Amino acid sequence: MSDDWFHLLNTISIAFFAISGALVAYEEEVDSFGVVVLAVITAVGGGTLRDVLLDQPIFWIAKPDYLYSTYGAIIVTVILIRLNSGISNRLMIGFDAFGLALYNVIGIEKALINETGMGVAITLGTVTAIFGGLMRDVIARKVPLVMRCELYATACIAGGLVYAGLLYAGAPYLWCIAASLVTTISLRLGALKWGWRVPIFKKDIP
Amino acid sequence: MSDDWFHLLNTISIAFFAISGALVAYEEEVDSFGVVVLAVITAVGGGTLRDVLLDQPIFWIAKPDYLYSTYGAIIVTVILIRLNSGISNRLMIGFDAFGLALYNVIGIEKALINETGMGVAITLGTVTAIFGGLMRDVIARKVPLVMRCELYATACIAGGLVYAGLLYAGAPYLWCIAASLVTTISLRLGALKWGWRVPIFKKDIP
Amino acid sequence: MSDDWFHLLNTISIAFFAISGALVAYEEEVDSFGVVVLAVITAVGGGTLRDVLLDQPIFWIAKPDYLYSTYGAIIVTVILIRLNSGISNRLMIGFDAFGLALYNVIGIEKALINETGMGVAITLGTVTAIFGGLMRDVIARKVPLVMRCELYATACIAGGLVYAGLLYAGAPYLWCIAASLVTTISLRLGALKWGWRVPIFKKDIP
Repeated sequence: MSDDWFHLLNTISIAFFAISGALVAYEEEVDSFGVVVLAVITAVGGGTLRDVLLDQPIFWIAKPDYLYSTYGAIIVTVILIRLNSGISNRLMIGFDAFGLALYNVIGIEKALINETGMGVAITLGTVTAIFGGLMRDVIARKVPLVMRCELYATACIAGGLVYAGLLYAGAPYLWCIAASLVTTISLRLGALKWGWRVPIFKKDIP
Repeated sequence: MSDDWFHLLNTISIAFFAISGALVAYEEEVDSFGVVVLAVITAVGGGTLRDVLLDQPIFWIAKPDYLYSTYGAIIVTVILIRLNSGISNRLMIGFDAFGLALYNVIGIEKALINETGMGVAITLGTVTAIFGGLMRDVIARKVPLVMRCELYATACIAGGLVYAGLLYAGAPYLWCIAASLVTTISLRLGALKWGWRVPIFKKDIP
Repeated sequence: MSDDWFHLLNTISIAFFAISGALVAYEEEVDSFGVVVLAVITAVGGGTLRDVLLDQPIFWIAKPDYLYSTYGAIIVTVILIRLNSGISNRLMIGFDAFGLALYNVIGIEKALINETGMGVAITLGTVTAIFGGLMRDVIARKVPLVMRCELYATACIAGGLVYAGLLYAGAPYLWCIAASLVTTISLRLGALKWGWRVPIFKKDIP
């Protein structure tokens, strides 16, 4: 993946997560700069963990542009929320789905560039994709999306496996990325719309 | 900032946060060394994150003195709590405010020494100032202070902006530090005493 | 400690924590790969923090074998849970106790190899032993084990002190390790069975 593509996808995924963080802050009615803090943690949390684990410079410290686009996304979100008060929780989950899929692919790419194996790369993609939203939900004291029965981690891991399969089959990078994104987003949105589930444990509720 | 000043401010801020952690542990009635663990995480959590993000040696591993002063502060706090059973929640929030202001300035300073820009430095100051108390509240399952409507992140960011403004205006270091501390602490304590708020979102509660 | 011993103990402790994470996921009825994510975070969380703080390569990125044994332990656990539906919460706490004791000793060892002092090493052992289970409980929205009155942090710190005492007395490494493990596990299990406590704070409940 060229640097330009990496930069573009990273910026978009950060914006999606920043929006999801600002929407959660709206739900919880936090103070004004508390919105900014929750949105920033959601947006850069996963990528920060990724860079710490790979022992790379933290992306938003090395290139502050990422931080400034995060602030831009937050300000636009706050203005739009104030203009449209009927923001639904579904919208937040939609933005979260797009951020999740993008962060997943970026995490896998960056791990492979740093010469980890594919198993580590898929694990790192999933963990870093989940991490920002997980911190958002923990801080806001909501049930983390990953703990609900709605194909959350499953969608990430499926996206990673599709990426790995196409890469081993010799497909060009952009195809791998696109197929992984489509897999994760469609599983995630399908789970929300039609209630798709892959339960491991079925408890008999008496 | 000379090393001695840095050392002194760092030790004081760690002691404040250690005290706030021990007070929360007292509220929650944890077991004896659980108090120590919660207080240690609160005291060194933010600074540890700061050093990880800046890729510097972790301060309490490089200089164990910091760890031993943390233990000292915890032991003194535990003894004082046992002598005075009427400890209020307000006291905890007061110690938290002083720790917050100091950690904020130290984070900004250390970021600038490591040659980040001012935007990154203010972000890092706020995030690392908030982080220890955030972990304390998450572990103790309390509503994090940053999620309440009481100028928490706002006070940090205002302190950072005052620091940056005075620095650009050419004021000496100690003035920048002092003005930032006064700003953060007075906003925070004012919010607690007189209910100052800067709401972004106003929901009509039907 | 030789590399082989280190590898063996590390693998066992990871498996214990992976099992405890899968058991908590079972309690909470998460989706299928959500189980994997929660178990992976529990199993490698503490060791990841340890390696980040010591500025060492993350063990599961440097040696992916650790990650694959984690996945193996999770799959076996899931199969066993499906065969035996009567899994109790006590079993989870038992596995957690063994993982805790092992992670504690490994953390102390790895800190000493990286030439920290003994005070830092005991702190690092306790914090990294607690961290994986703490993330598990926070994500699953349970009261963290470390916040309950049941000798959790106390058992870790006692194990660390026994290790340090025997090491200074000139005992061979394996004895130090064995004595520390026995101390932590027996304190932890004794606390669960006979309700041992070391309260610091006694509140009069009116």
